[in-house]
Amino acid sequence: MEVVTVDLGDRSYPIYIGHGVLSSSDLLRQHIHGNQVMVVTNDVVAPLYLQKIVNQLQGFQCDTVVLPDGEQFKNLQTLERIYDALMDKRHNRTTTLIALGGGVVGDITGFAAASFQRGVNFIQIPTTVLSQVDSSVGGKTGVNHALGKNMIGAFHQPQCVLIDTLTLETLAAREISAGLAEVVKYGLIDDAPFFRWLEENIQGLLTLEDTPLRYAIKHACECKARVVAQDEKESGVRALLNLGHTFGHAIEAKCGYATYVRGEAVAIGMNMAADLSHRMGWLALEEAQSVGKLLLEIGLPIHPPESMSVEDFLSAMALDKKTVNQSLRLILMKNLGQSVMTEQFEEGLLRQTLSAGKSLCS
Amino acid sequence: MEVVTVDLGDRSYPIYIGHGVLSSSDLLRQHIHGNQVMVVTNDVVAPLYLQKIVNQLQGFQCDTVVLPDGEQFKNLQTLERIYDALMDKRHNRTTTLIALGGGVVGDITGFAAASFQRGVNFIQIPTTVLSQVDSSVGGKTGVNHALGKNMIGAFHQPQCVLIDTLTLETLAAREISAGLAEVVKYGLIDDAPFFRWLEENIQGLLTLEDTPLRYAIKHACECKARVVAQDEKESGVRALLNLGHTFGHAIEAKCGYATYVRGEAVAIGMNMAADLSHRMGWLALEEAQSVGKLLLEIGLPIHPPESMSVEDFLSAMALDKKTVNQSLRLILMKNLGQSVMTEQFEEGLLRQTLSAGKSLCS
Repeated sequence: MEVVTVDLGDRSYPIYIGHGVLSSSDLLRQHIHGNQVMVVTNDVVAPLYLQKIVNQLQGFQCDTVVLPDGEQFKNLQTLERIYDALMDKRHNRTTTLIALGGGVVGDITGFAAASFQRGVNFIQIPTTVLSQVDSSVGGKTGVNHALGKNMIGAFHQPQCVLIDTLTLETLAAREISAGLAEVVKYGLIDDAPFFRWLEENIQGLLTLEDTPLRYAIKHACECKARVVAQDEKESGVRALLNLGHTFGHAIEAKCGYATYVRGEAVAIGMNMAADLSHRMGWLALEEAQSVGKLLLEIGLPIHPPESMSVEDFLSAMALDKKTVNQSLRLILMKNLGQSVMTEQFEEGLLRQTLSAGKSLCS
Repeated sequence: MEVVTVDLGDRSYPIYIGHGVLSSSDLLRQHIHGNQVMVVTNDVVAPLYLQKIVNQLQGFQCDTVVLPDGEQFKNLQTLERIYDALMDKRHNRTTTLIALGGGVVGDITGFAAASFQRGVNFIQIPTTVLSQVDSSVGGKTGVNHALGKNMIGAFHQPQCVLIDTLTLETLAAREISAGLAEVVKYGLIDDAPFFRWLEENIQGLLTLEDTPLRYAIKHACECKARVVAQDEKESGVRALLNLGHTFGHAIEAKCGYATYVRGEAVAIGMNMAADLSHRMGWLALEEAQSVGKLLLEIGLPIHPPESMSVEDFLSAMALDKKTVNQSLRLILMKNLGQSVMTEQFEEGLLRQTLSAGKSLCS
């Protein structure tokens, strides 16, 4: 088993990564401090793993909430179901919420934990690649508003994160690919050697070979933990983790959250960021093309939907949280493996990227 | 003008207290750091002060939300109206929310600020005695759940608090009395000389005489600021500020939030706490009686509603946030001006207090 520590002073916590770690009840129980637990999951994950978790929690008051699966349910109404269950079962301030599932379950459960009685403990058990390498690490929690993703939420750190790579074996290929999009992101942010490693090892990751899989997840968690430790509340460097997200969120917002899963939208967004970075003269053509090539090998979409106009993009992007005093900031690449947040891009070139469609430089 | 500083490291902030401070636009403007402002108020306060505030905010994008007045609207649905307005007007992370009104407006606006885009700035302009001496200081924000008060929320500190004693002149006598209940509370917690000062000066406070009024508000804010600085997240001493609240919340929950305003419910709760403290042998009869006597002089109710049974109380109190691992904790008085949080009370004596009705020792 690998352990990565997220170093945040008195809010520090461990990430346990291994094949079969969910079968070790000690790991889970040692991070529960009261006598009440509420396991929150969804109707896809529940039949696979819920009973396994509940069985480990004998001796606790253990209640469960099973939410409908899907980003479209990541909203205040679903959040209220968790509050209702907590109140109905009389959970108090010492309760621990356990998020068992992907990023949606983690984000919504984390925000429930952040806000129930002004903050209770929680534990993340992410069961998808995406949530294992990204959303379960760093304490961002929240729900969507009809007009924008993750607009309502809090920073709230878990007690620990339990990553069992066994859970990935029940995922559809599409979900594995979507998760790997975020792994590629870490290479593009500040780690060109990791990007090159991914080019070499992508087939092993797609088939869930244990050794490369554990290496990639641990490396991604370490990268994220390092960035989060530097900038917990995203006032600076942490914003780089949003590479591809500004374009991606716009695509999700306009197409509905059901058309693309997040990693797919982020893949398109990263390819658009590479394209704009190339147009700005910051990224060589073959480097920009290598981004799209790797994403394609993973089986990800890399071109924006033809139905989206330049104005669709600009209107959705203006609502992005990275808009500061109404001037748009983007995460772009100054080199392969060296991303920056900047307002210094030419609007004309941005419009070229937004309208390029299948002619993106990749 | 008086200034009290709440000392919380990099989250420290000033409380300005004075007659007419709302007419000084500099005070307000110096605490707004972006170029967007959302003023949240209710339909009673809006006609009195909203235009005055908006006039001071020329040069900012200044939007407003007017909520319906009343504790019964302190819920997730009303909170969503604030999110909707912020999204509709495209407020970004640098926006400042201004809470203009009593405790309900302050609590709900504070939670909107805590959770919008995972936290934006806010400023409190409390316009009632209760909110000036209690809820606007200390960073507790939140909304009610149908099954319990303040069950959903966050700790989120404002940039500053602006207290204009002029705003009290438009209050009904009932609201002034309710606010003074919380002022009495500070005397009972740890300040017997202040309790005695209140006995001497209560008539001047009821008629809003400037000198005693400013002294009492400043003294109450200092007391609260001191306690909050010691214990921001209420893991210990801060819980003493809930004197009377456990009984009071039970009364509000069972009678509906519209029957008693909070200070009235807390007054009854403090009198019940004094009664139980006397039954425990901790508080002399004449001291317990002096609590009820002062509250009566202020015009507050001191007896629980006859419709409430012992079981009604116990059932509501079991949901109180001060329930730790399902054993009930109460704030009781070991002496006049010396309160403690304790599980060490006899259930039989608690039942006597809960069933005493008009026979409470006061």
